[in-house]
Amino acid sequence: MARTSDVATLVSQAREGQPRAVARLISLVEDASPQLREVMAALQPFTGHAHVVGITGAPGVGKSTSTSALVAALRAQGKRVGVLAIDPSSPFSGGALLGDRIRMQEHATDPGVYIRSMASRGHLGGLSWSTPQALRVLDAAGCDVIILETVGVGQSEIEVVGVADTVLVLLAPGMGDGIQAAKAGILEIGDIFVVNKADRDGASATSRELRHMISLADRPEGAWRPPVLKTIASQGEGIGKVVEEIDNHFVWAVESGELTKRRERRAADEIEAIALAALRSRMAGLGSSEALNDLAQQVVTGRIDPYTAAERIIEGL
Amino acid sequence: MARTSDVATLVSQAREGQPRAVARLISLVEDASPQLREVMAALQPFTGHAHVVGITGAPGVGKSTSTSALVAALRAQGKRVGVLAIDPSSPFSGGALLGDRIRMQEHATDPGVYIRSMASRGHLGGLSWSTPQALRVLDAAGCDVIILETVGVGQSEIEVVGVADTVLVLLAPGMGDGIQAAKAGILEIGDIFVVNKADRDGASATSRELRHMISLADRPEGAWRPPVLKTIASQGEGIGKVVEEIDNHFVWAVESGELTKRRERRAADEIEAIALAALRSRMAGLGSSEALNDLAQQVVTGRIDPYTAAERIIEGL
Repeated sequence: MARTSDVATLVSQAREGQPRAVARLISLVEDASPQLREVMAALQPFTGHAHVVGITGAPGVGKSTSTSALVAALRAQGKRVGVLAIDPSSPFSGGALLGDRIRMQEHATDPGVYIRSMASRGHLGGLSWSTPQALRVLDAAGCDVIILETVGVGQSEIEVVGVADTVLVLLAPGMGDGIQAAKAGILEIGDIFVVNKADRDGASATSRELRHMISLADRPEGAWRPPVLKTIASQGEGIGKVVEEIDNHFVWAVESGELTKRRERRAADEIEAIALAALRSRMAGLGSSEALNDLAQQVVTGRIDPYTAAERIIEGL
Repeated sequence: MARTSDVATLVSQAREGQPRAVARLISLVEDASPQLREVMAALQPFTGHAHVVGITGAPGVGKSTSTSALVAALRAQGKRVGVLAIDPSSPFSGGALLGDRIRMQEHATDPGVYIRSMASRGHLGGLSWSTPQALRVLDAAGCDVIILETVGVGQSEIEVVGVADTVLVLLAPGMGDGIQAAKAGILEIGDIFVVNKADRDGASATSRELRHMISLADRPEGAWRPPVLKTIASQGEGIGKVVEEIDNHFVWAVESGELTKRRERRAADEIEAIALAALRSRMAGLGSSEALNDLAQQVVTGRIDPYTAAERIIEGL
């Protein structure tokens, strides 16, 4: 995959929906390939169609089961679906992650579903550019809906899911009650809250607590009011209603201008991350062997402070 | 805390070892205060003395108990000790984290011990500059040894602990066996491996497996060979040997030049992170309201690709 013609071929194969071409393009994103610029420029005109649905929640709430149930429901409507699972804390390559997921395997042979996990191997801010780029690949490949899932609910996970058009927050009775949700910062980012494993004790209490906390937030006229739904994802119960609310949120987001706002923010974050990565590599190119090492030595011996050193590096760019 | 004289006062109080001054300086780091530049320049000449010992390990291996036992052993030698606990995944402020730690509380009233937790509130790369800066505060305050502890063993934790002079990797029988250690990438970063809870089943097997994996690594002549020790930290058993090996590693690191190499790398990372943060804030200043939003709109509507947009942002800097 070194020549320009290969990129053009891959892009056109991906647009035809060939799974191997889609997979190779996402691998290029994951590997931070120097060919990405060309790939992204070629994909750009064919994007903007897919509805990106972010899913987050603590381990054990049933994210993968819920994703699988959502995929089944969306497929029943004839929609093409992409699933992108991100593991921000893993330095390892994707692929294996979803391989373990029995629930997902029922969709693995469906040509209308792309399933892919992605690790962030790269440097600082890697996820800020790699997530929108992987989404762009799936978008250009004709996905109607892309489910963006992260592992865990740390700050980086919240940032990743924050790029979605619609954010679904999953909880389970007894594990992620309202207070936990507030502490993890997911109360602010959720467009739809789903209490999964609703057949367990405490499901109604968790729902009530969430509704109460949501009701406390100040909302201007016409703002979206996040619904709190109950599901038993393993049995498909309540999933229809979740799909309905995902659609409702999309319609609201289009009409209110929120969709454009979010997508512009996502693009701005991506542009900034690419610019920073470029500056960083210039810095490494200029500095790492000579100037930066020399300045680092001076900081260690106490001759200059790190801020002065940083200024000299910037001057050198 | 707005005037220059206040910074000078705080710095001199911290150098005298006043705990409140130390705490306030670390809060300035945590808050990414604009006064940091001045603070770091004032502290710089008084640093380089402390031995930074990083501790990492999965939740449940007994990190906090081990840290507490190490503090007790180091205090018995008359050393001043700092403990800095970092939670890279938390967007929330520190303080509370260590408040829960019963084991730590026995040292809370000892004037020869500083205990502080720090969250990374900031932006991308925040830990790259905030960790060395907090270490610099404790160093200048006269700590002989600073224990740097992180929560969890994700990639960011490994990077944080990677700035230490000596890295201690904690495991427990049955939880973190050798394979897990290799997967998490801690096999490469550990200078000393400690199998805690050595009275439990499987402790010897875990030690053996670790020793075997360590023996497989290619090591040049004169390289440090990580020892594998066993402890029961809750009873203080084996801690003396751990302190001894920490000292041995320090002596080796000084003589081999590894200490200088690590500290220069730490300084280089810090300089780079400060430079990137400065460029980022310039970018935000220049772009965020006008140019960047305009470019983001063009990306969303498919008129330009994000790389071209990023180039225009860099040109504008």
